[in-house]
Amino acid sequence: MQGKFIGVMGASGYSGLEVTRLLAAHPHARLRFCASDRWVNEPLAGRAGLRAEATGGLVYSSADEGEALFSSCDAVLLCTPAEVSAELVPKVLAAGAKAVDLSGAFRLQDAGAYPVHYGFAHPRGEMLKVSVYGLPELFREKVRGARLVANPGCYATAAALALAPLLKARLVEPDDLVVDAASGVTGAGRKAAEEYSFAELADDFRAYKALRHQHAPEIAQTLGAAAGTASPRELAFTPHLLPLRRGILATCYARLRPGVLAAAVASAYADAYGPERFVDVAASADAVSLRQVVGTNQCLVGATVSGRRVVVTSALDNLVKGAAGQAVQNLNLALGWDESAGLGALCGRYP
Amino acid sequence: MQGKFIGVMGASGYSGLEVTRLLAAHPHARLRFCASDRWVNEPLAGRAGLRAEATGGLVYSSADEGEALFSSCDAVLLCTPAEVSAELVPKVLAAGAKAVDLSGAFRLQDAGAYPVHYGFAHPRGEMLKVSVYGLPELFREKVRGARLVANPGCYATAAALALAPLLKARLVEPDDLVVDAASGVTGAGRKAAEEYSFAELADDFRAYKALRHQHAPEIAQTLGAAAGTASPRELAFTPHLLPLRRGILATCYARLRPGVLAAAVASAYADAYGPERFVDVAASADAVSLRQVVGTNQCLVGATVSGRRVVVTSALDNLVKGAAGQAVQNLNLALGWDESAGLGALCGRYP
Amino acid sequence: MQGKFIGVMGASGYSGLEVTRLLAAHPHARLRFCASDRWVNEPLAGRAGLRAEATGGLVYSSADEGEALFSSCDAVLLCTPAEVSAELVPKVLAAGAKAVDLSGAFRLQDAGAYPVHYGFAHPRGEMLKVSVYGLPELFREKVRGARLVANPGCYATAAALALAPLLKARLVEPDDLVVDAASGVTGAGRKAAEEYSFAELADDFRAYKALRHQHAPEIAQTLGAAAGTASPRELAFTPHLLPLRRGILATCYARLRPGVLAAAVASAYADAYGPERFVDVAASADAVSLRQVVGTNQCLVGATVSGRRVVVTSALDNLVKGAAGQAVQNLNLALGWDESAGLGALCGRYP
Amino acid sequence: MQGKFIGVMGASGYSGLEVTRLLAAHPHARLRFCASDRWVNEPLAGRAGLRAEATGGLVYSSADEGEALFSSCDAVLLCTPAEVSAELVPKVLAAGAKAVDLSGAFRLQDAGAYPVHYGFAHPRGEMLKVSVYGLPELFREKVRGARLVANPGCYATAAALALAPLLKARLVEPDDLVVDAASGVTGAGRKAAEEYSFAELADDFRAYKALRHQHAPEIAQTLGAAAGTASPRELAFTPHLLPLRRGILATCYARLRPGVLAAAVASAYADAYGPERFVDVAASADAVSLRQVVGTNQCLVGATVSGRRVVVTSALDNLVKGAAGQAVQNLNLALGWDESAGLGALCGRYP
Repeated sequence: MQGKFIGVMGASGYSGLEVTRLLAAHPHARLRFCASDRWVNEPLAGRAGLRAEATGGLVYSSADEGEALFSSCDAVLLCTPAEVSAELVPKVLAAGAKAVDLSGAFRLQDAGAYPVHYGFAHPRGEMLKVSVYGLPELFREKVRGARLVANPGCYATAAALALAPLLKARLVEPDDLVVDAASGVTGAGRKAAEEYSFAELADDFRAYKALRHQHAPEIAQTLGAAAGTASPRELAFTPHLLPLRRGILATCYARLRPGVLAAAVASAYADAYGPERFVDVAASADAVSLRQVVGTNQCLVGATVSGRRVVVTSALDNLVKGAAGQAVQNLNLALGWDESAGLGALCGRYP
Repeated sequence: MQGKFIGVMGASGYSGLEVTRLLAAHPHARLRFCASDRWVNEPLAGRAGLRAEATGGLVYSSADEGEALFSSCDAVLLCTPAEVSAELVPKVLAAGAKAVDLSGAFRLQDAGAYPVHYGFAHPRGEMLKVSVYGLPELFREKVRGARLVANPGCYATAAALALAPLLKARLVEPDDLVVDAASGVTGAGRKAAEEYSFAELADDFRAYKALRHQHAPEIAQTLGAAAGTASPRELAFTPHLLPLRRGILATCYARLRPGVLAAAVASAYADAYGPERFVDVAASADAVSLRQVVGTNQCLVGATVSGRRVVVTSALDNLVKGAAGQAVQNLNLALGWDESAGLGALCGRYP
Repeated sequence: MQGKFIGVMGASGYSGLEVTRLLAAHPHARLRFCASDRWVNEPLAGRAGLRAEATGGLVYSSADEGEALFSSCDAVLLCTPAEVSAELVPKVLAAGAKAVDLSGAFRLQDAGAYPVHYGFAHPRGEMLKVSVYGLPELFREKVRGARLVANPGCYATAAALALAPLLKARLVEPDDLVVDAASGVTGAGRKAAEEYSFAELADDFRAYKALRHQHAPEIAQTLGAAAGTASPRELAFTPHLLPLRRGILATCYARLRPGVLAAAVASAYADAYGPERFVDVAASADAVSLRQVVGTNQCLVGATVSGRRVVVTSALDNLVKGAAGQAVQNLNLALGWDESAGLGALCGRYP
Repeated sequence: MQGKFIGVMGASGYSGLEVTRLLAAHPHARLRFCASDRWVNEPLAGRAGLRAEATGGLVYSSADEGEALFSSCDAVLLCTPAEVSAELVPKVLAAGAKAVDLSGAFRLQDAGAYPVHYGFAHPRGEMLKVSVYGLPELFREKVRGARLVANPGCYATAAALALAPLLKARLVEPDDLVVDAASGVTGAGRKAAEEYSFAELADDFRAYKALRHQHAPEIAQTLGAAAGTASPRELAFTPHLLPLRRGILATCYARLRPGVLAAAVASAYADAYGPERFVDVAASADAVSLRQVVGTNQCLVGATVSGRRVVVTSALDNLVKGAAGQAVQNLNLALGWDESAGLGALCGRYP
């Protein structure tokens, strides 16, 4: 295969770096440009922790230079803030390239939700209908060949993969869901803020944006789709900040419908994820841990039942399955490549 | 004041060490013995990180030697495993001393729960009626002068202090409670097990004993008492293991009764904890973090309301307010001392 | 005792916070003001992790307000950058108060060293002769009653306490010294820089300023004084950044003079530190660790000899014995108080 | 290429697991057996964090079963303790297979050093002459085709790669070397000991085996060979334990011979490592950090000169370039494969 040309916008953030690394080692992708105003003309190799031979001597472009190259790309991955992506994605599409957007700009179907959850009025609300939500394990057929893929949020991926099988199989009450999740610090992006300094975050653990995180409506929308209900599900979502660099663990609580047994829960997960390359099912909620998945594109899911309560834990690397890895998975589907191309070599590191 | 004699059983565990340190600096307590078969005849100072002058040259006793001294003590603090405490506490009381037991042996009112949750048949079930549950902020008057105080579990303290005000004020549905909590590693005690080695736990985060932790019935019992209902409340409790040494953060989810407003929630906490020396109320669930309380006997509690959902976080040091500090608080009440004696100097370390 | 009035400049940095906390609990000190332009009019309690009753309701002053109060203070502690201290200290003295300066502004005797090591020409070089270097274990008599005390650097304290006894007793070659040290991140101060973010520093370890750290001449000057030689000793000093918040461990290498035995080394440390309240001698270089001293004003020192090589390790808390604690120790000496006043309650936390 | 059969003894330790993972992804190696009495008949996949398809369904063998398969292997990698390797290696060679031994059993040329440094009399001292020390960057030609390769120790690799260029080019005094190094906890192997528990090691940093670590003679032997001197060099070596899982940073101090300039130092490193695939040269001692190399087979080396002092830092992953990765590098050379086969995909993870 001759390969296709891929561009990366926002290449200097943590997701952008991870995308760059994955694409540099991808069997079919050829990096057309990596744009970041921060590192213009610096070699990719030094910044992205890559060997020079893996990058073909490529240097970082400015954002403007990147934009000028959209039309020479087969696809562009956008690792830019939502407000920037909202402006850039239409230009990518207009240039004839496909877009995989890692921000939240095209994830929500309801344009009215953007001022509330993202702090800006969506400039191209009509495109939300065109956008495909790129969670392949739930919406694979829509992603295949799609022109615009909205790559899911890291928490949203963890929560949706944990709960969707239960809702799809109608095993739980859809209106009594709790998602309690914890993320490593890279989830907040690159920060020169005192509150993200080592001295402030080490040895600490705390909740943030309890009941008001912007991923809550995204999770609700996905679970609504999984349940086949028109209206999104009500749920309580509280994220926490772990004193770790990478990894998300979501602990999700639901109430089983009357008469549902543990065996039905186990079957639901086996059915949903048995054939999946990037989701593994653990024996119980206790058998899921960050270390098993960090550095890989895997999501590990496990459920424990007691009486009418079910607890489901899911773990993933927020920068891989929660961002860059899933973006490559979506790129593969959008361009008709093997879904796991460029992702197979990643494996969890033990210890 | 002349001081009273206090003995410590199980002095070499993490709780035992913390109790030893607190009592060595206590204005009224005089250490009669610290017993641990592990360190017999070694000076306290070296093991407990104390200066020799603070310990009066005391050396560790064997457990047998400690037992022989029960009758010369005003009170004995037991930092022994539940099954050992179940045997020792009656001997302490028979010797005429008061007992503060840090294990779970005398926490549950229902003797039948012990085989299920603690793995042994309670040898002295009749004493469960005598035992007072030592959560001073809820049951202070019962603890005053008590002969046998069951010191609460670390998770149970965090969860009960978080949720009791809502149940007491009848602001939430009592049958739809979720407690999701995370603890530092010292909560598991001193361990020579590979699974508790640094190489296995660092960089990791996971749930354990989801829906089957022995603190769940303890929490339910306390919240039942707080709610004034006969039967304990059903709740879902999942603890997690943080890659930290100390600290517990509990994130609790409840559903407000129809018509309850955020202001009522705020009032409930202000009323409950305004006068309390060892519980502080934060502005919201997001304003609570481990670092604010580790090294102190404080519990910090904060609530956030959205629609009918309320999330309450609580943080404490599992070895202080979750164990040794609360034990000293209970000792103070049992012996008629000022409740905060020996605990005031502790203050959170920043940074 | 009625107490004396103490002011704190630069109160919002990590050292300033630690000074504030120590003084708030000091038996003789009365906080006259805590100045930080950052937190003007905010209560001390919230920022410094203190209970309101411990601070008498004091709020932060502006730097200007602080300066206006110099003349109403018995002493001022300066936790300001060296260049700021160089300007403020003369004003403190002119106002009739004593000064304990935690910066490097008055540590070096040679004004010509400031442009090289601190990046500014010293505005008041003549005062370097007035200044007393506040390492009480080496220069106690000079510190007693001193008007201006230059509080030593954190690395310099660790290195000097480790090596001085060997040089004083003429046991080692003075011109072949290596100091390899590692510090927790708070040593760098409060930083809103990306390179000090959690995501960048966690899981990492590296040297910085190898052979060119500004504490090298300070260490050399102190060791020269200890050795009784006119010229400072040549030494190689490399600091490292540990992924921890607090603590310094210095590992120092020297060559024994011919014929010197291990017993002489042991005697030198016993003689030097036997009577010292804040320096403890461990059995060997291996018996010294950060956890034993973090949170205290202790320095722990241990030596191991093999052939003609001696390795000495020393550990201290960079914010206590390496900054704020030692500043209070110096304040106590300067004002004629008991040297350990306000420092005795601090004890290492185990675990 | 058809591949050759490789066996692994001691497969359940941290080095054994890493060897297993590398060989499972190796283009030419075919895993014949992985032996560990601990996990007999368990699938490799689960324990080694590998996907089942990567292991061909292989299960762990007992040590006896492994031994019985030596004769069907082209090479055996031994991840066993030194005393066990000393017995097994002769059997491997007798069976006609090549041996790469990761223990210290065949590293020292002087059999008399074993009782002192390894605590046992070497049962096959005559084989120490046959053994080739597998540091390819220094002794590549000897390793090519070798029957028995002694894989270097992790600290020894870091120290030798840091200092050998200076000694080889005769730029430094050979008798005044200090190696101060720090390692992550996995360097100590899998431990069920309390002193290696998370609660004991977290937040701590300390030296151990100062001046008496068993890698000191190994380093001296290698540097002696590099310097072309008959006798090993005297050196002071102190390792430290970092609160991290992986990574070694060595900080090495030497004294330049009179007249040697910084440019000569830079040239020595450029000459020595310019062509090397697995050693990179950084701009200075400050530019070397663990995070750049952990997870890879790279060693990063940087030097800083001031006057006659030179400080050289080197960083590597103790389980990769310090153990399993270097073992595969040696295996490749011994079997005539491309030296980097199976190692190229490893790349440092950023962040």
